[in-house]
Amino acid sequence: MEDCIFCKIIRGEIPCAKLYEDAQVLCFLDINPINPGHALVITKKHYPTLFEVPTEELKACVATAQKVAKAICKATGAPGLNLLQNNHRSAGQLIEHVHFHVIPRLPQDGFLTSWSGKPYPANQLQQSLEKIRAEL
Amino acid sequence: MEDCIFCKIIRGEIPCAKLYEDAQVLCFLDINPINPGHALVITKKHYPTLFEVPTEELKACVATAQKVAKAICKATGAPGLNLLQNNHRSAGQLIEHVHFHVIPRLPQDGFLTSWSGKPYPANQLQQSLEKIRAEL
Repeated sequence: MEDCIFCKIIRGEIPCAKLYEDAQVLCFLDINPINPGHALVITKKHYPTLFEVPTEELKACVATAQKVAKAICKATGAPGLNLLQNNHRSAGQLIEHVHFHVIPRLPQDGFLTSWSGKPYPANQLQQSLEKIRAEL
Repeated sequence: MEDCIFCKIIRGEIPCAKLYEDAQVLCFLDINPINPGHALVITKKHYPTLFEVPTEELKACVATAQKVAKAICKATGAPGLNLLQNNHRSAGQLIEHVHFHVIPRLPQDGFLTSWSGKPYPANQLQQSLEKIRAEL
């Protein structure tokens, strides 16, 4: 897409620190990393989010993310790692081109430290289950 | 694995709110959701993390996550969604059986609001790149 920053990287109009590339995906270092080694895996074709990307290209992304994750942890010695894929602004997506973050984690790095999960109110788990199953 | 809570769910020893199941993966609602509809996708076989799961089973997880994500957003009306996959305790992994979180997002839900990325100090992007490429 003309004005998409990730499409510009794919076309070579903007440089990147490339880690891996094949016919379907490109992987490069995030220039504003949570920790050094933080990488992005993107599809070569433009799809805005998880909801538009064809499943085969999504699978190619996650296979690359796995391969790169192993290399990042070996190279950095990070004791943990997150895969994170954000869709739409309310989920933290900034570039509207589907991508996975591969984030090596260091103790006390201040990222994703709170986890606000709490149990469902009475009966609402069953209601959620039925509503979602109706859409599957 | 004998004492793994997700393996107990797979064996039917602990109940779950099941959304989807096939030969390779199981998907069910998280009982302590970030928001209603928050689901988990797990492999049927026990692998601790992203680093041990065979790539084909990882692909099956992400394909199921995509399918379920669409249904969750339709059913809940959530305007955003994250896929999140945590590896090792320092990345927030609590159950040592590989899994994806499928998290519908609501405005002001308080999850993943901070993003602590910052640029590399001089020359360190190139150093990180070379160290990781050497492991690929």
